[in-house]
Amino acid sequence: MTQMKGFFFPRTASGQASLIPSPPWYYSGDLLTVEYRTDPARVAELLPAPLEPAAEDPGAVALIWADWQSCSAGREELLDPVRSQYKECFVVVRCSYRGRTYSRCVYIWVDKDFAIARGMHQGYPKKLGSMWQTRPHPFAHGAPQIAAGGVFGATLAAGDRRLAEAVLTLREESETNGFVNAHPMAHHRVYPDIAGGGDAYAELIESGGAEFAGGQAWRGDVEVRLFDSPTEELSRLTVEEVIGGYYRQVGVVWNGGTSLERLTD
Amino acid sequence: MTQMKGFFFPRTASGQASLIPSPPWYYSGDLLTVEYRTDPARVAELLPAPLEPAAEDPGAVALIWADWQSCSAGREELLDPVRSQYKECFVVVRCSYRGRTYSRCVYIWVDKDFAIARGMHQGYPKKLGSMWQTRPHPFAHGAPQIAAGGVFGATLAAGDRRLAEAVLTLREESETNGFVNAHPMAHHRVYPDIAGGGDAYAELIESGGAEFAGGQAWRGDVEVRLFDSPTEELSRLTVEEVIGGYYRQVGVVWNGGTSLERLTD
Amino acid sequence: MTQMKGFFFPRTASGQASLIPSPPWYYSGDLLTVEYRTDPARVAELLPAPLEPAAEDPGAVALIWADWQSCSAGREELLDPVRSQYKECFVVVRCSYRGRTYSRCVYIWVDKDFAIARGMHQGYPKKLGSMWQTRPHPFAHGAPQIAAGGVFGATLAAGDRRLAEAVLTLREESETNGFVNAHPMAHHRVYPDIAGGGDAYAELIESGGAEFAGGQAWRGDVEVRLFDSPTEELSRLTVEEVIGGYYRQVGVVWNGGTSLERLTD
Amino acid sequence: MTQMKGFFFPRTASGQASLIPSPPWYYSGDLLTVEYRTDPARVAELLPAPLEPAAEDPGAVALIWADWQSCSAGREELLDPVRSQYKECFVVVRCSYRGRTYSRCVYIWVDKDFAIARGMHQGYPKKLGSMWQTRPHPFAHGAPQIAAGGVFGATLAAGDRRLAEAVLTLREESETNGFVNAHPMAHHRVYPDIAGGGDAYAELIESGGAEFAGGQAWRGDVEVRLFDSPTEELSRLTVEEVIGGYYRQVGVVWNGGTSLERLTD
Repeated sequence: MTQMKGFFFPRTASGQASLIPSPPWYYSGDLLTVEYRTDPARVAELLPAPLEPAAEDPGAVALIWADWQSCSAGREELLDPVRSQYKECFVVVRCSYRGRTYSRCVYIWVDKDFAIARGMHQGYPKKLGSMWQTRPHPFAHGAPQIAAGGVFGATLAAGDRRLAEAVLTLREESETNGFVNAHPMAHHRVYPDIAGGGDAYAELIESGGAEFAGGQAWRGDVEVRLFDSPTEELSRLTVEEVIGGYYRQVGVVWNGGTSLERLTD
Repeated sequence: MTQMKGFFFPRTASGQASLIPSPPWYYSGDLLTVEYRTDPARVAELLPAPLEPAAEDPGAVALIWADWQSCSAGREELLDPVRSQYKECFVVVRCSYRGRTYSRCVYIWVDKDFAIARGMHQGYPKKLGSMWQTRPHPFAHGAPQIAAGGVFGATLAAGDRRLAEAVLTLREESETNGFVNAHPMAHHRVYPDIAGGGDAYAELIESGGAEFAGGQAWRGDVEVRLFDSPTEELSRLTVEEVIGGYYRQVGVVWNGGTSLERLTD
Repeated sequence: MTQMKGFFFPRTASGQASLIPSPPWYYSGDLLTVEYRTDPARVAELLPAPLEPAAEDPGAVALIWADWQSCSAGREELLDPVRSQYKECFVVVRCSYRGRTYSRCVYIWVDKDFAIARGMHQGYPKKLGSMWQTRPHPFAHGAPQIAAGGVFGATLAAGDRRLAEAVLTLREESETNGFVNAHPMAHHRVYPDIAGGGDAYAELIESGGAEFAGGQAWRGDVEVRLFDSPTEELSRLTVEEVIGGYYRQVGVVWNGGTSLERLTD
Repeated sequence: MTQMKGFFFPRTASGQASLIPSPPWYYSGDLLTVEYRTDPARVAELLPAPLEPAAEDPGAVALIWADWQSCSAGREELLDPVRSQYKECFVVVRCSYRGRTYSRCVYIWVDKDFAIARGMHQGYPKKLGSMWQTRPHPFAHGAPQIAAGGVFGATLAAGDRRLAEAVLTLREESETNGFVNAHPMAHHRVYPDIAGGGDAYAELIESGGAEFAGGQAWRGDVEVRLFDSPTEELSRLTVEEVIGGYYRQVGVVWNGGTSLERLTD
């Protein structure tokens, strides 16, 4: 009798075709973060019970662009980098669960299928998008440096519409890379019932990095614009007050999480 | 307290941002089908218990290209066709479950995120790929017709590697569009446990079209080639004997399925 | 001594690698046309001397989406349709040259490199874009028909920004497919001097279809919207008055043109 | 009378829509270079008279991947990086013209339209392709460093077929980044006659960087594989002997060139 292998689909006798390998997953990348305040009610409406708004600064939002290179423990993806590099833009808010503060990704766009599948596992609600962020480079001919005066642009589009754009001018070294995305993540994972009528599976899970290394964070002045789309709700999180912009290079390992609550039988 | 809406993620107060709407889903498209026989053991190794090989012709495989336009009941996607059109290539085998014959999609590639999400719901193990198939057109300057002598090419690539290609020359009208993809689908839906150690959710489900309309099917002579890739197993389903090639235009409605077995608690 | 072959670059000993083959080129496709009037001064500013505004209706503009399948005389591209299918959106105005009325493409976006190269030869100023237009299909589940009441959407994006969108509702059969794109094309072909200081080569040429076949044209009601972009000037051609919308399936052969004026030595 | 502006098409009253701005053009990027020897006859057949094979090592070939960020003098592209970043893979050989040694790009693939247009001006025979090269990053979790033991992969695909792939393992600092691409470029620029029968314009031009800055070059061991395609001739330049692999970060300014020979009237 066949024993199927593979962390994710398609499962086969060898597991070779699985869209993603088992964790741990390894990441090196650059983060461009914009933090701002919106109407706290717009954040609250994205928090299903029993999640509650964060006690402090409940309208804080982080809009984050990331330019990643990633791999599994075997690192073979790094030699065929179409399987390794991807870009993303995601929106993080904070919430409270059983008295603890969590970060929570409410919207996210990526540009590879393996990133969608990882997100499914981690509870990130990933769609496909087109993300671009200026890259630093040792030579300034066509690039900024991660230094005072460095200017970085970032854009997000999906469905052939631009959804967001930002320009960040670095000003000084920073002790933090922002505070909104600094907690463990509290995410829902859902699978609708094939027969209709709710979810066959739903669970609230917690996860975070198993390892983290970060370079010097920088902060600066940032402009940000959000645009409407008939299939997105990002622009409901209107920019009422910019908190700041940040840039940081990081290395991360992700290796699973834990269940907080099973929401279906 | 917030009541979240949305058939799939991201769920919000209005449900507007959901990657896909609730079924029913409506499709119009063209199917180019290649049927062939491979070693039945290669099919059997893709059938987890309690699925068993089909009693007759257990090595039969259908490699199908489809060029779709699709929408929800509101049909608004048809006015913004980046949200409506997609292409796919998929591989179907047959199996037996409790004495009944089912079709089963073992590999599938699509080119839009909404198609990935629909497939997640339906149990199709979708990856992103690049699919192309020759289109018929009333004017022959740069196109075949669906008629004797019409020649149609089809290709599949993923990860910047070509995985399959076929050339079909129509010969005559056919009573069928092949037999491998002609049964209800028996698919697994799986969600790995966030803490490792197996699946948090797994279910064997059955589904099929809620409505179907098809034009005249055509059969013809077909050449097909499969290519290796380090991340795919399609080429294990070697072409031992070509059964036939088919072309048919169809309209389909999909509206959910039923559970066959819940495989996790 | 090596004799280089190839209609276009790269030229090699065999010519096999040339981005495009020699004409004639063959096309089958569907045209969705929006005709409208803008300020005639906005058209005139796109007509370099000695071109002059058309005597009648000098502010008329055609915004045309086309969904093409194309090939060379050998038709081998049809069997590998990634080399055959492409989409485009283009903007046509009319002008007068030596007393004769010409059509003239002032902006155009395509989604394949071979289409860019053909356009270079024909004098179409092609950029890459993302174009989508609703496709008719025999089955109405997810598609309109080319008939009264058929609704077709069309969109254009480039640089991750939407530039134009239209919705056309067919009303009745039409004797024409519009009048703006109905003349021979008067196009400039230019090659800037490698040392700066103007063009090394510039020529005004005339071309048109060597063969043309068209199905029944339909006209209808159309809505159209243009959007700004820092790298485009399409939205300067503001929609002051919609003339009409058209849909037609066509087959075309293109086989070269003639020089009207050589503008450099 | 309208005076048209714009370095390249489309030309308009303001020049804003031109696909590319006037030089100088500024570049920051990473080069992964593979040098090898092929049959010198295969190089010679790519050299139209009066170009002749290089006197020394006439079968030497450089296969180069480049990951670029680029801009015009105003640097506004850097704030909207979809207009700034692109990847390319190109093949360089050497030749002799009037007793001087030149480099010459015989094949090149890029992934943006502005890069195609720049190449048209510079005489690079650009097609669209899909290129990926491993990126170095300060954090090793999912990335190599530019240091002994760093491993970099690179792939090239076009038309949904993989054309080339390489894996480079850095071993030591190098005085050079290879020798094949180290000379001024001798390129043809061609424009076929609209009426058929040869070229309306053809010129042999010379160009090179107006400014250049380079980091420490590294050399290492490299594996390289070339694959066949019906529309490419890269695989004719068979790898007979690997010379070496190189990695270097560079900054470049390009600002025009000079005519060597006008080949048409």
